[in-house]
Amino acid sequence: MSGKLGVMEKTCTVMLPLTMNSSENRENVCIFGTGDFGRSLGLKMLQCGYSVVFGSRNPRTSRLLPNGAEVLSYSEAAQKSDIILIAIHREHYEFLTELIEVLKGKILVDVSNNLKINQYPESNAEYLAQLVPGAHVVKAFNTISAWALQSGALDASRQVFICGNDSKAKQRVVDIVRTLGLTPLDRGSLSAATEIENYPLQLFPMWRFPFYLSAALCLFFFIYCVIREVIYPYVQEKEDSTFRMAISIPNRVFPITALTLLALVYLPGVIAAILQLYRGTKYQRFPDWLDHWMLCRKQLGLVALGFAFLHAIYTLVIPIRYYVRWRIRNTTITQVITKKDNPFITSMAWLSDSYVSLGILGFFLFVLLGITSLPSVSNMMNWREFRFVQSKLGYLTLILCTAHTLVYGGRKFLSSSILRWYLPSAYVLALIIPSTVLVIKFILIMPCINKTLMRIRQGWERNSKYSKSALNGKSDI
Amino acid sequence: MSGKLGVMEKTCTVMLPLTMNSSENRENVCIFGTGDFGRSLGLKMLQCGYSVVFGSRNPRTSRLLPNGAEVLSYSEAAQKSDIILIAIHREHYEFLTELIEVLKGKILVDVSNNLKINQYPESNAEYLAQLVPGAHVVKAFNTISAWALQSGALDASRQVFICGNDSKAKQRVVDIVRTLGLTPLDRGSLSAATEIENYPLQLFPMWRFPFYLSAALCLFFFIYCVIREVIYPYVQEKEDSTFRMAISIPNRVFPITALTLLALVYLPGVIAAILQLYRGTKYQRFPDWLDHWMLCRKQLGLVALGFAFLHAIYTLVIPIRYYVRWRIRNTTITQVITKKDNPFITSMAWLSDSYVSLGILGFFLFVLLGITSLPSVSNMMNWREFRFVQSKLGYLTLILCTAHTLVYGGRKFLSSSILRWYLPSAYVLALIIPSTVLVIKFILIMPCINKTLMRIRQGWERNSKYSKSALNGKSDI
Amino acid sequence: MSGKLGVMEKTCTVMLPLTMNSSENRENVCIFGTGDFGRSLGLKMLQCGYSVVFGSRNPRTSRLLPNGAEVLSYSEAAQKSDIILIAIHREHYEFLTELIEVLKGKILVDVSNNLKINQYPESNAEYLAQLVPGAHVVKAFNTISAWALQSGALDASRQVFICGNDSKAKQRVVDIVRTLGLTPLDRGSLSAATEIENYPLQLFPMWRFPFYLSAALCLFFFIYCVIREVIYPYVQEKEDSTFRMAISIPNRVFPITALTLLALVYLPGVIAAILQLYRGTKYQRFPDWLDHWMLCRKQLGLVALGFAFLHAIYTLVIPIRYYVRWRIRNTTITQVITKKDNPFITSMAWLSDSYVSLGILGFFLFVLLGITSLPSVSNMMNWREFRFVQSKLGYLTLILCTAHTLVYGGRKFLSSSILRWYLPSAYVLALIIPSTVLVIKFILIMPCINKTLMRIRQGWERNSKYSKSALNGKSDI
Repeated sequence: MSGKLGVMEKTCTVMLPLTMNSSENRENVCIFGTGDFGRSLGLKMLQCGYSVVFGSRNPRTSRLLPNGAEVLSYSEAAQKSDIILIAIHREHYEFLTELIEVLKGKILVDVSNNLKINQYPESNAEYLAQLVPGAHVVKAFNTISAWALQSGALDASRQVFICGNDSKAKQRVVDIVRTLGLTPLDRGSLSAATEIENYPLQLFPMWRFPFYLSAALCLFFFIYCVIREVIYPYVQEKEDSTFRMAISIPNRVFPITALTLLALVYLPGVIAAILQLYRGTKYQRFPDWLDHWMLCRKQLGLVALGFAFLHAIYTLVIPIRYYVRWRIRNTTITQVITKKDNPFITSMAWLSDSYVSLGILGFFLFVLLGITSLPSVSNMMNWREFRFVQSKLGYLTLILCTAHTLVYGGRKFLSSSILRWYLPSAYVLALIIPSTVLVIKFILIMPCINKTLMRIRQGWERNSKYSKSALNGKSDI
Repeated sequence: MSGKLGVMEKTCTVMLPLTMNSSENRENVCIFGTGDFGRSLGLKMLQCGYSVVFGSRNPRTSRLLPNGAEVLSYSEAAQKSDIILIAIHREHYEFLTELIEVLKGKILVDVSNNLKINQYPESNAEYLAQLVPGAHVVKAFNTISAWALQSGALDASRQVFICGNDSKAKQRVVDIVRTLGLTPLDRGSLSAATEIENYPLQLFPMWRFPFYLSAALCLFFFIYCVIREVIYPYVQEKEDSTFRMAISIPNRVFPITALTLLALVYLPGVIAAILQLYRGTKYQRFPDWLDHWMLCRKQLGLVALGFAFLHAIYTLVIPIRYYVRWRIRNTTITQVITKKDNPFITSMAWLSDSYVSLGILGFFLFVLLGITSLPSVSNMMNWREFRFVQSKLGYLTLILCTAHTLVYGGRKFLSSSILRWYLPSAYVLALIIPSTVLVIKFILIMPCINKTLMRIRQGWERNSKYSKSALNGKSDI
Repeated sequence: MSGKLGVMEKTCTVMLPLTMNSSENRENVCIFGTGDFGRSLGLKMLQCGYSVVFGSRNPRTSRLLPNGAEVLSYSEAAQKSDIILIAIHREHYEFLTELIEVLKGKILVDVSNNLKINQYPESNAEYLAQLVPGAHVVKAFNTISAWALQSGALDASRQVFICGNDSKAKQRVVDIVRTLGLTPLDRGSLSAATEIENYPLQLFPMWRFPFYLSAALCLFFFIYCVIREVIYPYVQEKEDSTFRMAISIPNRVFPITALTLLALVYLPGVIAAILQLYRGTKYQRFPDWLDHWMLCRKQLGLVALGFAFLHAIYTLVIPIRYYVRWRIRNTTITQVITKKDNPFITSMAWLSDSYVSLGILGFFLFVLLGITSLPSVSNMMNWREFRFVQSKLGYLTLILCTAHTLVYGGRKFLSSSILRWYLPSAYVLALIIPSTVLVIKFILIMPCINKTLMRIRQGWERNSKYSKSALNGKSDI
């Protein structure tokens, strides 16, 4: 996909003759530091038509610099341009205090990253601003990798987060970012630098809770099923059914986890509605755990979709398993030998077909939900459409999947649902949270309750002291 | 995905000390109205480094305003800034006529939405421009939700459509939108405001026709199949096959609908080509129905892909159905008992394997087409590639799927394709439109016809009166 | 998805009254040439609030021009605006030399395309700049199609690549592009015009190598399998198993191709690491073939995913094939007749279930990898996350898929893996590259070797002559 652009940029690296631009107005940029990242950035800037000067402690021994770039001492280089990229580790910033006079009024771009999240009390950019108070410090470029700049293969983010206190300085940096073919994103004042510096060190922070939760659920249900389906028959009848741990038990654990996670996507909304009804206002903050839960609903839903996908494939491979083929053959042979009759029971056909059909339709809607949560797709929808999909279609999915489990359970119930060591079948546990969510939701959408909730969500308050202001609010959006 | 940015912005909400910016040049923004949306927007602007003044009818009783914001009377607030966001319902705009003097030369940003599409004869923004003729009215921000601004979870659109007659005023608003981390999209002059105000009220307008069409097709084929496969056997042999309605009949209805819809994606292109050939020019407008049909081809294709996906899963679950297992067991037992021979017929194996193989390949290409229609993927392709995928690969998909149905039908034909109540098998109906499209397309790509068509599409006209101009056209693009 | 915007723009086409804007400051734009593209662009500009003047050789005979546009002679039209779009074929540029005086200081936008890649020694835009030396030439709009501008259905790229030597002229064009609702992308100086002119003529250049490679692999393995499984039994036992070519053999060829391609995604990284270790530096360029290979790894991986997807479906349809049903029925009947015992072998159940389970998990991770390579998804990840997914998850996928093949092979080995005409089973060939990659990777991540490699990748050099500069490098990023 981005490969083509990669090629364009790569060829550009090779082909662009630098002489072409020299006659016309080229902007000067200075880079302090001749490390890997500094050089990559300099090369890219040269290719995009900038005139680049490197500042180095030992200008003569600096090697590997891109052709066409000048190397000078720090103070000489700084005088050549009003914008200076500081491609130096934070630990070595102190020497800049010697250059305070030269750097006065210049734009200093801090491109540094740390090794750990919140490694220092203040961000590198703020530290730089303290060291060189006369300069305009802008944080930028720390989210881009040197390798990506070199190879042109910007497969991961092209986004460059920018922050700074001086808006003109920021605008200059934004222009450079755009010219390099990257996407600038203004994050406000320099105090946002801490966040921007932590960003490249993050590893899926929003996915952590859903991941650990689903791992815990999987483990619990796996052990539960192993006890009921492997240990119990072994203890009772010395039957070796360990092979069930490869497919049969995962295919019980995955759908249960998927359904539970899907219900947990809709549970916080239901809790929030109850809280709002109880408090009679929407202007009180939710507890932190609820806030965090609501913000990672999308991730919970996508993890649930992953498990549903695994369940679908594990189910579809059933007929090609050795065990299943052996069992079917055995049943047939036994029936032939015992000459037992084989009547067709329509109710069984209905039960079997309808739980399969419910499951397929639920899975289909679930996949649709997943597709609409792709950034480029959800970006094409307005809020009304987004809410329609995520709420209406989402609840329909939950209803279909719960019904699928119920009918499947119902079928099991008819045939052999005895307790084993007082443990009910795992699917019974799977139904607890979804059923609870659906029942409460059903109560919440009853006209009398729903009306109150809607009024609260439009800003109405039960115990408002400002009656006049409430009137006022009516004319305001 | 966007969760991470959500976290960044959320933390930003909490962490940004407002004192940091105060020393430097902060821009003043005024917001009229202290409703939910006005407050959310104000809070977001404060966080992004703006200095915010609220204008309110009762400045003293206004509550819940973000920390750091000033509240003044309308006229006092308006004097503090040259840009004023009108976060007030259209019904209450009249009071602004009292402020005409103060608002002269100011930028008024209309953020309002209506409750219904085309609720008023003119857009809110144009109405505002009439009320306050001395001000520069810009429409913006109406597509963003207050909740999204508050929580930072901008999962749906970050796009802010902007329109206005004064380009400098627009540019100012564009800059604010960018600083808030949103995506500005210029839609031209203020007359586009009607469209922009209708946008958030739309519910999948392009999907409506494909949705209703496919629902109608499904219903028709479902009833058709129920008559042939449930009512007919019941009337003729008192056989209860109602259970077929859960899987067997949907799995006949879905592929038929999918194939018909896929053919309907390519039918308008074929009709357009015939029209162009008949008229001898491409400079006459197509009838409106054809125009609309051509614009929703993508949606038709994606709905068809949905049905094809359902057909694929419904087919794959066949062997785990109770009915199918019973029938296979029964066949085996009957064969054992009757001691009938069970010869392997190679032609049957060929037929069965090839229709399955054609279906799989068709489905695979169909999925590829679906992936390339994802906005972020299609955005990476140039026109030549896009046309190659959607036209060449699309027709290949149609050919494979039609062949799949033909071979499947062929197999049925050999075994038991009698008419029931003069009704042919449903698959025969399914083949009508696809075959027609393919035959006409085959005629159109024959060299003699294709050459004329290509010339017409490059701007040639059969009955052109302007021979000189035609010459002229040759040098122009 | 983009349909909605399409509708907005379309309606806009119809509804926007041009009179609205006339009173306010409208920008003048001149278009030379009244061909299809020139007219479409002019219409779009009129709709977006520009005042458009066409320049034509025969102003009076020009037809089909949009309402509201003026048509003048070239020199008259040029005087009306300081920005002129040259919508004329390159072959007719010479006449512009007559207008050199009028065009002095003007911005000339070259929108032309060629018919072939690298058709002329220099790009059209550079040729234009030579012809009219006094003007500022900017290349733009050549990637947009006239049809898309007319219909508003910009499904493929909205990206407009721009290049030029004068930054102010470029900025003017960038502003126009944004106002038309398109996405400007600055590509640097005018020497990039060759690339930009070649871009719309490309047809998936990055996919060509993966496509031909996979086609060659498929063909080779198909023939190999036909020899072993169709020709061999026919020659030896006159058995007709041609029907195997429809499903059985593809379902052997596809997984082998998928696994080989997946291993080829990780092979260049392993080769690069060995090269770096051998050279003791990362600052030597890789050979060109390795560079190219590394840049199309993503495409290789996605083609592999396609084959894996086909393998998954071909496997899932196994139980509904006539041949398989016949064989199962036959086995059962034979067993009944011969009264042979049918013992359940736990080890067989383990083997069968575990290779299926490994395959499903591998496929699941593979699909995850595919989803994260969607541009809009990968754009949401930082480099650490992207590397985690593509490297860690990628290798896990390779391990699972290799294990899946090994266990499957192991099972076959137990039953019937005799050589046929000295040819081993195809799965043995499939394992060569993946096993090699995994073994070398395992050696590379052993602490002693990994440490050296990490140091090299951070810029350390074994034979560095610049010891001081190496020190210097430590402080620089």
